Amino acid sequence: MNRRMVLYTLGYITIANAALLLLPAIVSALYGELSTLWTFLIVIGISLLIGFALRLFSKPGTTVIYAKEGFAIVSFAWLIMAAIGALPFVIEGAIPSYIDAFFEIVSGFTTTGASILSGDSLTSMSHGLLFWRSFSHWIGGMGVLVFVMAIIPNLSDRSIHIMRAEMPGPEVGKLLPKARDTAKILYLIYIGMTAVEIILLLVGGMPLFDSLVHTFGTAGTGGFGIKPDSIGGYSPYLQWVIAIFMLIFGINFNLYYLLLIGKVKAVLKNTEMWVYLGFVGFSVAIITANIFSMYSGFEESLRMSAFQVASIVSTTGFATTDFNLWPGLSKAILLLLMFTGACAGSTAGGIKMSRVVILFKSIFREFKKLLHPRSVKVIKVDGKKIDEQMIGSVTTYFAIYMVCTLGIFALLSIEPFDMETNFSATVACFNNIGPGLAGVGPAANYSAYSGFSKLLLSLAMLLGRLEIFPLILGLNPMVWKKK
Amino acid sequence: MNRRMVLYTLGYITIANAALLLLPAIVSALYGELSTLWTFLIVIGISLLIGFALRLFSKPGTTVIYAKEGFAIVSFAWLIMAAIGALPFVIEGAIPSYIDAFFEIVSGFTTTGASILSGDSLTSMSHGLLFWRSFSHWIGGMGVLVFVMAIIPNLSDRSIHIMRAEMPGPEVGKLLPKARDTAKILYLIYIGMTAVEIILLLVGGMPLFDSLVHTFGTAGTGGFGIKPDSIGGYSPYLQWVIAIFMLIFGINFNLYYLLLIGKVKAVLKNTEMWVYLGFVGFSVAIITANIFSMYSGFEESLRMSAFQVASIVSTTGFATTDFNLWPGLSKAILLLLMFTGACAGSTAGGIKMSRVVILFKSIFREFKKLLHPRSVKVIKVDGKKIDEQMIGSVTTYFAIYMVCTLGIFALLSIEPFDMETNFSATVACFNNIGPGLAGVGPAANYSAYSGFSKLLLSLAMLLGRLEIFPLILGLNPMVWKKK
Repeated sequence: MNRRMVLYTLGYITIANAALLLLPAIVSALYGELSTLWTFLIVIGISLLIGFALRLFSKPGTTVIYAKEGFAIVSFAWLIMAAIGALPFVIEGAIPSYIDAFFEIVSGFTTTGASILSGDSLTSMSHGLLFWRSFSHWIGGMGVLVFVMAIIPNLSDRSIHIMRAEMPGPEVGKLLPKARDTAKILYLIYIGMTAVEIILLLVGGMPLFDSLVHTFGTAGTGGFGIKPDSIGGYSPYLQWVIAIFMLIFGINFNLYYLLLIGKVKAVLKNTEMWVYLGFVGFSVAIITANIFSMYSGFEESLRMSAFQVASIVSTTGFATTDFNLWPGLSKAILLLLMFTGACAGSTAGGIKMSRVVILFKSIFREFKKLLHPRSVKVIKVDGKKIDEQMIGSVTTYFAIYMVCTLGIFALLSIEPFDMETNFSATVACFNNIGPGLAGVGPAANYSAYSGFSKLLLSLAMLLGRLEIFPLILGLNPMVWKKK
Repeated sequence: MNRRMVLYTLGYITIANAALLLLPAIVSALYGELSTLWTFLIVIGISLLIGFALRLFSKPGTTVIYAKEGFAIVSFAWLIMAAIGALPFVIEGAIPSYIDAFFEIVSGFTTTGASILSGDSLTSMSHGLLFWRSFSHWIGGMGVLVFVMAIIPNLSDRSIHIMRAEMPGPEVGKLLPKARDTAKILYLIYIGMTAVEIILLLVGGMPLFDSLVHTFGTAGTGGFGIKPDSIGGYSPYLQWVIAIFMLIFGINFNLYYLLLIGKVKAVLKNTEMWVYLGFVGFSVAIITANIFSMYSGFEESLRMSAFQVASIVSTTGFATTDFNLWPGLSKAILLLLMFTGACAGSTAGGIKMSRVVILFKSIFREFKKLLHPRSVKVIKVDGKKIDEQMIGSVTTYFAIYMVCTLGIFALLSIEPFDMETNFSATVACFNNIGPGLAGVGPAANYSAYSGFSKLLLSLAMLLGRLEIFPLILGLNPMVWKKK
């Protein structure tokens, strides 16, 4: 392994982190929050120190990296970002425990949105910290490394390995021959859509600060809010805007690129998008009927249903109502959507619709194989043949995914909470959703868990965001061996 | 599809069913239960009538059958057996509702052991009916069709298709060139081990009737008891005997055949068996420590732990204590064991250890593939290379297995019970275990569910016992089409 190159790149990332911390520092300054400003300046200093030290002491002989360097860079980058990102909360005293602050910011970067903060602590937090908390969603949504790749020159051409390790979905397509150019385009689309949502929220009368943080939460499909009742207190118009943008940010960004360059037909032929919208439509319809008697009229039921479905399927985690009080059927549908997640190549978590599609096609093929053992059937998606290696990877990914879910749940069962709480906490963190059911429902938070469980759930969030393999390989000392 | 051959074979099976019903009839006669005796004689008459009618009106032109005929025969055979097997309970009035009786006997044949009967209804039931209830475990354990193949001559040589559809596990090995001979040997081993357990229970002072029904429940890994507290009231010796036999009946029967013909080395090299025993040892150790403070001394804690672990991993479902009162960690371990089940080729349910082994090997291979994309790794079990088709089938089986679990759970969520009840009911029925947690724990029963849910859970039990594919293919009208 090219360890120097790993450390060198980590140096870049830590410096980039310092740059990103400037934004909440500016927000603190604008709101006249002097102590928060000082906090951020100190953390920026620490970041720069570590960053330059890493770069200085590890000038690499060669910049060539392979898959394993990609995994190591991504894994450690996320850990360093979180370790430093937790500091402002602790220094400021807003979250006194470092483990709690680490949980909170891992939840931010992984776009989970699971919080240990109660409604009261939220309302008393400074604007600078609230901004940083939500901004971490926006950074983590598109990817820390993709950001670095987009802005920093002279990275190796092999940086596609970094991108592969960080981008969600079974297959990372290069839109353009160079990984860097792809990263840039993706970020431009991301910024563009973010701007549109901010404007639409402002138009609807949401204050600027609220518009910014909620858009960050939507764009990254994160879900940190700034009010005890999440989005519940805003107008129906604002709720609809956020609901629709949660769905939009759950679609593969490559499709927006195709739209930009005028390939509308290719977009309309995208199986994953239709399956995703189909799941959404179906779930919204059933839940609307199921909860109809709980709300006043059709529009409110539909809005509650659509918002919560969009929030869960896109793995955002905003809420406009306490869906923990919904009937069992509606809760079960939401729990199933927690597993599927949205589309590959979006900012959402979960298994991803494209994997669900391949999984189901592979199940149907198995049925046919049993009837006609000698027939050879290929699986096609979007009219293209999926190669057998990929199918094997998807079914195996699903297996390790379920094994992780069950394993994390078993470890979390040491906690004295009921099974609904522990299981939904596992699913909600591992799939980067945020709120679960019962004791960790939308009206509750994760503060009751022990330090061990908070670290376990932080690991679950990272495993979910990085899709398991990169983290396990990147943190595995056996992989670091020099050959 | 050779429909006539399907109906003709179903005729055979219905007649065999009549023969099996003679046994509880004899038991009723011995206990002087005249009304129960009449009930069984009536049902035997109905069985014979249907059986001969089917044979008379469907003399097949050709006896050749293929995979799809195998699936159809197995699916309909199990449905007919259950439809007729439910009658004695209804006619006698012991279970007035036909749906309840159907649930109870499906639970019997599929060796699930989930019951709608309360402790009181159990103690007031006639010996003949109690015997029939437990005997259905014994029949279903090795397989209804395997039984028919073993005793009835002139079945097509292609009957391996029937055996494949009914026997659990990813690969059904033929011990001998002819499927019929294999079926016979398996049944002889089954009868032999059953006899040994009965003797050991009698030696320990258990009454003859109790020894018979509990051995049927153990051998088939079913779990229907005749006491409100299951096995809890018997002596420690008897509990240990049943615990050990539950584990024994969870091991692949092929290994006992190998033992019989002296191939001890081949048995000791069996990966699946060691993984199975490893899971058991590990779980027993952790749970013993976890529940130590709840019982008086080491022996009792170990016995409680070992009995419950053996009962769950072998998917039997007997209980010596209400494990629903155990701490969360112990309950979570039991829940995980509910999924794995025991070995392929045994009478147990669940995913099966051999699939778990292949699944984990395939996960590890995926890790290696990510690091070294161009390396080609084969997966070996017991020193033999597993072919890629088989690996694909196992991972796909796991996928459809989880999809079924989540789907059944979602449908069951219409019921107004808590998630722990509904989820564990799904897992306990689909994996043919019996008792779940909370509202369907060892001290409770399934009577509170609606008729719809009882039919849904009956389907889940059949899907689990027949390993999903045969039932879905066998009951699918699209498969019946003549070519």
